[in-house]
Amino acid sequence: MTATYTLYPIGRIRSPLLDRKDAPKSAAEGAPDAWVEVDPELAEALSGIEVGRELILLTWLHEGLRDVLQVHPRGNEDNPLTGVFLTRSPDRPNPIGLHRVRVLEIEASTRLRVGPLEAIDGTPVIDIKPVLSSTIDC
Amino acid sequence: MTATYTLYPIGRIRSPLLDRKDAPKSAAEGAPDAWVEVDPELAEALSGIEVGRELILLTWLHEGLRDVLQVHPRGNEDNPLTGVFLTRSPDRPNPIGLHRVRVLEIEASTRLRVGPLEAIDGTPVIDIKPVLSSTIDC
Repeated sequence: MTATYTLYPIGRIRSPLLDRKDAPKSAAEGAPDAWVEVDPELAEALSGIEVGRELILLTWLHEGLRDVLQVHPRGNEDNPLTGVFLTRSPDRPNPIGLHRVRVLEIEASTRLRVGPLEAIDGTPVIDIKPVLSSTIDC
Repeated sequence: MTATYTLYPIGRIRSPLLDRKDAPKSAAEGAPDAWVEVDPELAEALSGIEVGRELILLTWLHEGLRDVLQVHPRGNEDNPLTGVFLTRSPDRPNPIGLHRVRVLEIEASTRLRVGPLEAIDGTPVIDIKPVLSSTIDC
């Protein structure tokens, strides 16, 4: 398994959350709204988007530690060490974040206000996908 | 936005689906079970996994075309051209696949039989995450 793949940001998060230690552990824990600024060269890839849609954002958790394989869930040492693939820790071999958000506003075709979102300001966005169904899909 | 990021496979899909043209468009359309072979060096990152758990697999859709920004959804030309970020097309700037599966069997700590899964044989796996809730999360 020596092949590697190159990702590039398709956009970036602009959020009032400036520091990982201030960010909630999940969107449901009081995360604010944020802006997704998509690269204007990729505007066509957003055609069909509408306010009210639910989207899945994939982000690159650029402050994640890639050599961590186990964590105490939620950073609480009372929780037993658990494999990172069974947690949503930003520390993981490929530090990808998964966020389900709703589109609240669209500006200039490529700026999307979404929420709630626990990712911090400056986080690169690497993909956007539709939510297909709340039950059978994700 | 010139920085890029390097992904490495954490494992690979072993599936009876050998060709993209034979794969269903989604897991709900008759996709088979498949094996996820996780790199044995990452076994610790799976600690806590159990049969019956639902997981989200992120894959690298290695046959995806990265310069495609719009597609006819489901490959049907009767469907209007739509931005790839509003579709689950494997053709997209960063060809990441998102799959919600259930763990059906575990062998030797790092081989997981999961299903249903529409990814083809040989697809690299780049992350595994828990499903936190079928309603508020994905």
